Amino acid sequence: MTPLEMIVAKRDGASHRPADLRRFVGALSAGEVPDYQVAAWLMAAYLRGLDPTETAALTEAMADSGRRLDLSGLGRGVVDKHSTGGVGDKTSLVVGPLAAAMGLTMAKMSGRGLGHTGGTLDKLESIPGLRVDLAPEAFIDQARRIGLVIAGQSVDLAPADKLLYALRDVTGTVPSIPLIAASIMSKKLAAGAPAIVLDVKVGVGAFMRRLEDAEQLAEAMIGIGRRSGRRMGACLSRMDGPLGRSIGNTLELREAIETLHGQGPADLHELSLTLVGLLLVLADQSARPEHLRDAMEAALRDGSALLRLRRMVEAQGGDPRFIDEPDRLPQAAVVHSLPAARGGWVAGLDALGLAETAVALGAGRRTKEDSVDHAVGLRLLVKPGDRIEQGRPWIEIHASSEADLAAVTDQVQATLAISASPGPPPPDVVIRHWVDTGAAL
Amino acid sequence: MTPLEMIVAKRDGASHRPADLRRFVGALSAGEVPDYQVAAWLMAAYLRGLDPTETAALTEAMADSGRRLDLSGLGRGVVDKHSTGGVGDKTSLVVGPLAAAMGLTMAKMSGRGLGHTGGTLDKLESIPGLRVDLAPEAFIDQARRIGLVIAGQSVDLAPADKLLYALRDVTGTVPSIPLIAASIMSKKLAAGAPAIVLDVKVGVGAFMRRLEDAEQLAEAMIGIGRRSGRRMGACLSRMDGPLGRSIGNTLELREAIETLHGQGPADLHELSLTLVGLLLVLADQSARPEHLRDAMEAALRDGSALLRLRRMVEAQGGDPRFIDEPDRLPQAAVVHSLPAARGGWVAGLDALGLAETAVALGAGRRTKEDSVDHAVGLRLLVKPGDRIEQGRPWIEIHASSEADLAAVTDQVQATLAISASPGPPPPDVVIRHWVDTGAAL
Repeated sequence: MTPLEMIVAKRDGASHRPADLRRFVGALSAGEVPDYQVAAWLMAAYLRGLDPTETAALTEAMADSGRRLDLSGLGRGVVDKHSTGGVGDKTSLVVGPLAAAMGLTMAKMSGRGLGHTGGTLDKLESIPGLRVDLAPEAFIDQARRIGLVIAGQSVDLAPADKLLYALRDVTGTVPSIPLIAASIMSKKLAAGAPAIVLDVKVGVGAFMRRLEDAEQLAEAMIGIGRRSGRRMGACLSRMDGPLGRSIGNTLELREAIETLHGQGPADLHELSLTLVGLLLVLADQSARPEHLRDAMEAALRDGSALLRLRRMVEAQGGDPRFIDEPDRLPQAAVVHSLPAARGGWVAGLDALGLAETAVALGAGRRTKEDSVDHAVGLRLLVKPGDRIEQGRPWIEIHASSEADLAAVTDQVQATLAISASPGPPPPDVVIRHWVDTGAAL
Repeated sequence: MTPLEMIVAKRDGASHRPADLRRFVGALSAGEVPDYQVAAWLMAAYLRGLDPTETAALTEAMADSGRRLDLSGLGRGVVDKHSTGGVGDKTSLVVGPLAAAMGLTMAKMSGRGLGHTGGTLDKLESIPGLRVDLAPEAFIDQARRIGLVIAGQSVDLAPADKLLYALRDVTGTVPSIPLIAASIMSKKLAAGAPAIVLDVKVGVGAFMRRLEDAEQLAEAMIGIGRRSGRRMGACLSRMDGPLGRSIGNTLELREAIETLHGQGPADLHELSLTLVGLLLVLADQSARPEHLRDAMEAALRDGSALLRLRRMVEAQGGDPRFIDEPDRLPQAAVVHSLPAARGGWVAGLDALGLAETAVALGAGRRTKEDSVDHAVGLRLLVKPGDRIEQGRPWIEIHASSEADLAAVTDQVQATLAISASPGPPPPDVVIRHWVDTGAAL
């Protein structure tokens, strides 16, 4: 089929054959399909949909558009994890070390932050000297030695996804479940792990605002992974307020370290253990979930999880003493606490508003070309449901200057919703989690 | 609304406001909207549709993208005619002179042929010396003097349509009723006539193969014209076999001349009188249809219709003696008749197959850059329903060489369907015709 025939077929609601999708993606990767034809196909696919077989074939073709990492030499315990992105989401920095401490191998290619979602690489680079640009051989070697590596995409994973995403972004075809699922999973398939856990965020601070959309996305990604022979697990997690208490690269790294000490915020702790539990079940289906929890808590208590982070930092050129003494990490020039305007109960914290403020402070990028200021950000002193007295500090603003501080103060203050009476207890961060049984293939 | 907002709105099934469509078309005419965004919008519009108000606003905006011809100085009797294109469709060459003879002014900007549909300009240019590149002033002046002018688009009518059509052609968004209607009517609105009759062809040799599609297209175009204050009429005409007996530029011109003598094929004669009748009613609603027919027949019989063609040819630089003596027109080097392979009744003549053969002979263009050989083509000696004896000639092939003749012979022979028994009489060429009453606005 020519590109035009593909457009017409999808326009008329036909299902593409996998071989046709493979040729189409191959041709567009080779620059042989003009943007306007790709755009027309994307809109037809958006409105007509892609069935699970088409979505899986599209994803495999996108994964094949670049190099695939071969992790087969690392054994069965190799796992990967993906988050759809949220505010204050430092989960990978907890999940990776804890999974490694539990005997898994987490070889994760991660990304940088853009807009209101932060990037794991930016958080790691809060540690002076730490490098994330590892060659594939060094990446695999470190995974073998330490069980943990988190680095940038040194190889071009699924370059077709870059082309398609750039066009989706300007043609109104981003919010399509099959296209989102294919975009995410193409990179995960190319990254080579045989077991993948998905953390799909739901709420005002997330890409998916409605639970049913998040469920559909999770199932779409699981379906792709299953058809490509991967073991898949998923967790739907709440993202109305920020995850944990910190937003901003260094502040989030410090919170991850606290959590690896077993002293992190309850939501981050809970989500991390849920995700690692899923990874353990995927890697070893004979694992007894009731024993996993205790073993994971022990790995936090005895320092073995933190040790993995320390060894990873050292292996990637960072000074591990920053992990031992996080107070030595670079700090923002100005730290200022805001007092609560009135007393009551914390009814909500606007994740998106807080994230936008953090970006305004320099913690995130508005465009890919921006640099980030690692030290700046926000640290919450309260969480939803907490009692607060009038005039008591409820948040710390870490800014690089008094001017920056002044510029965001009102905006930050507006993110706190106070209720005169206590509401119901805040819901658990984990909404639902499951391991794919493969039955519905 | 930005182009991206327009795409998203149409994607989600919203109706555009006329002002937004106007800005969108303005921006794309100015080259400010990238092709991929126009393509995505076109596919969204294809699948979500455009309601009559949107279609009319889009059309007006497209008409405004270039110059509009001002024909207001020519009085109320100015009319225009559009055919959606068919095989052997030389109707304009009959309708124009007959309308002028009946007191109307036909100022028609016409086009060249592409693919299996011929172009009126190519047919006219069979006359040595005749020019179709008239400046707007000369165009209007000739209309005033003679009541008839048929020329090329000396001004850039609706250039936005060119941009949109070029993209539709490569993005699978051609066969959309609102987009087709807007494309046609944008040029008709810009061409300035206050009364327009549409000849919408239906059948295997036409763009619209199903009656209901043709009806929808006619109604969509009428709706646009009505909203723009034009008097509108339409005719649905059959296009299963070729119209008349000839295909090819000079042959079709000769057939038009025969028809203006009152000696043309019945279908061409009937269709031409129907269309001119509609034009007369549009120009003067007090016209009595029962008198129109006789008057038109008289205008053929007494030579007054042919005289208008002769004067037009002369005004446009052609030698009018070619109208008086069509035998003097350039002839093809090789003329060969094919015998019927067996006897029986003509059950059908494949319009599309015949048209493709004519293009192969050089009568039409495969691409816009091709030139045409005016003299070549096909002349049918039979029409559907005719009795034919085995071995008797049924078609003349006019070719420029024996090699060309040999190359198409089998293909031509395959277009004739012979039945052993007589079928029902062939249906009338005119399926339905009506004048818009404006009631449904």
